[in-house]
Amino acid sequence: MTFKQPIPTIRRDADGVVILDQTLLPHRCAQHRLSTLDEVAHAIRSMQVRGAPLIGATAAYGVAIALGRDAADEALDHALRALAATRPTAVNLHWALGRMGARLLPLAPSARAEAAWLEAEAIRLEDQETCAAIGRHGLALIEAVAARRPGPVRVMTHCNAGWVATCGAGTALAPVYAAHARGIAVHVLVSETRPRNQGLLTAWELREAGVPHSLIADNAAGILLARGDTDLVITGADRVAANGDSANKVGTCLKALAAQDAGVPFYIAAPFSTLDFACPDGSAIPIEDRDADELRCVNGLDAAGQLTSLRQAPEDMAVINPAFDVTPARLIRGIITERGIAAPGALREMFPAAEPS
Amino acid sequence: MTFKQPIPTIRRDADGVVILDQTLLPHRCAQHRLSTLDEVAHAIRSMQVRGAPLIGATAAYGVAIALGRDAADEALDHALRALAATRPTAVNLHWALGRMGARLLPLAPSARAEAAWLEAEAIRLEDQETCAAIGRHGLALIEAVAARRPGPVRVMTHCNAGWVATCGAGTALAPVYAAHARGIAVHVLVSETRPRNQGLLTAWELREAGVPHSLIADNAAGILLARGDTDLVITGADRVAANGDSANKVGTCLKALAAQDAGVPFYIAAPFSTLDFACPDGSAIPIEDRDADELRCVNGLDAAGQLTSLRQAPEDMAVINPAFDVTPARLIRGIITERGIAAPGALREMFPAAEPS
Repeated sequence: MTFKQPIPTIRRDADGVVILDQTLLPHRCAQHRLSTLDEVAHAIRSMQVRGAPLIGATAAYGVAIALGRDAADEALDHALRALAATRPTAVNLHWALGRMGARLLPLAPSARAEAAWLEAEAIRLEDQETCAAIGRHGLALIEAVAARRPGPVRVMTHCNAGWVATCGAGTALAPVYAAHARGIAVHVLVSETRPRNQGLLTAWELREAGVPHSLIADNAAGILLARGDTDLVITGADRVAANGDSANKVGTCLKALAAQDAGVPFYIAAPFSTLDFACPDGSAIPIEDRDADELRCVNGLDAAGQLTSLRQAPEDMAVINPAFDVTPARLIRGIITERGIAAPGALREMFPAAEPS
Repeated sequence: MTFKQPIPTIRRDADGVVILDQTLLPHRCAQHRLSTLDEVAHAIRSMQVRGAPLIGATAAYGVAIALGRDAADEALDHALRALAATRPTAVNLHWALGRMGARLLPLAPSARAEAAWLEAEAIRLEDQETCAAIGRHGLALIEAVAARRPGPVRVMTHCNAGWVATCGAGTALAPVYAAHARGIAVHVLVSETRPRNQGLLTAWELREAGVPHSLIADNAAGILLARGDTDLVITGADRVAANGDSANKVGTCLKALAAQDAGVPFYIAAPFSTLDFACPDGSAIPIEDRDADELRCVNGLDAAGQLTSLRQAPEDMAVINPAFDVTPARLIRGIITERGIAAPGALREMFPAAEPS
């Protein structure tokens, strides 16, 4: 049984696509139709679409949209460059654009637009398959807890690595949705994920999918693990090094430390596209520092129900705002991939060739 | 050299007191004069004054204010009860009121008001002394780092345990102020402390005192420790058990775990009044769950500069919101008290009698 997104994160609509605007969540659920290259580039840049797999698919559709107007070599090259510039550090974006270029450049211009739509659709469906496979493998972990004791299986996560970040069921949340579909009771502990509060997206998408959950402060992870209120921790990853060290949203390594201290297994869910065998270990992963206003300003609905922004800290308050941290492989019980669950040190054996399944 | 509060948190003013209203910080710096028992009880209840030592002193002044109008037995009893009901779980509040009752009940009503003012003033001055002594002992830790390498000594803290929480220099921040007064360069990493954002108070009070600092997301503590950007972690405590297990604001134990993993020493600063020798270990410390709206709602200044509140999560979003966690003694390098720095297991030897110095 394949997971069906309650609202498609992206779908083709004639010569355009319809996306779910994530900048308005969890407050407003709006869809936008994108029918020009500029609109697609803006949607990626402004984070209306976010999540590595979804960004990649959206960029692929952007190429198809651009080629519908002009499929000459220069137009293709322009589209690839314009989309690549939207989020310079997004690995999946560049992978998807590289694939589109390799597929389309050898073709005659007249054949490109149709081929581009087919390739973009293939990228979307492959992502769905990858999510489903991660879900199947991770499901075994949740089933094992459910078999051991009554009551819902309590899974803690961080940031958002669910259906809204992908074209399918997500990565970290795919096992949760697989368990829910099997009728296994689950309860997800959703970490707020300051400073950008992606936990609110996670809580929203779990509600849309009918999965029980509770929002927690990032600070509450320690006590909820220590006092036995958590059975499993599963997060996504932005990049996994060859030795299994995993970079993910800042705060992930604190959960991994607390899980280890409490004897609760900590897993990373990561598709092949996230594995970077060229990177020997976590020390080689660069950590981006982000804008101080992420901490100083907060968003929400005012008393009149208008989406608005407040300043919670003075404009001149100094801030240090690293966006990611690295969880060392020694704290990770396993990495849930589309091929199965690998011990962090055994990733290479699971993916002997450098190509995804 | 005693620390001078940039703005007194509480001071006598004829037959009343003037307090710094902490509900408006860091946005507005306002002082209020309190001249009736009801006003004092409201100030404590509404958290215009907060921080265990400051609450205790404020309640003591409240008794003096009440007795200025009526010093009969019934009036004294009423004042003690009314103030005790403001924050039922605050240990210092009850200690201060117990001390006021024991001092005043034996006296003739005509002598009580003056004695109450003297006793409240004594409580305030003793708290100043306690903070200063904690600062002197903790200073040695900062001096040791400064002697080892150039550059500012980077101290991470959590929540607010500085001058605004006390009548003096604070507890966790007292060593920082002592070092700053000696001309030792320090830089404080201030954890935001979701869900109530007491880190913003800490950043505000450090600025008022001229101490360099940076605000960080609670989630950033792991990477800032792991990559060597932190020399020491010092936090306060709400209650320290006989074995050294320490309850403090939720999130503290995550910093202690990350500090241990990074080989950075983690200290608790706690006056005698926080030590609970009747409590054998952390498992006996009850952990309060707080209102879900602490996570769902956020405060700040709107575009017009008005202090306002936003809803960042829907009203019906389920929340789990424990207010404290327990840091096990094994993660604590030492407990900085007014008598010196004790190993967590050696607290009893430092305080052999059950009375403060």
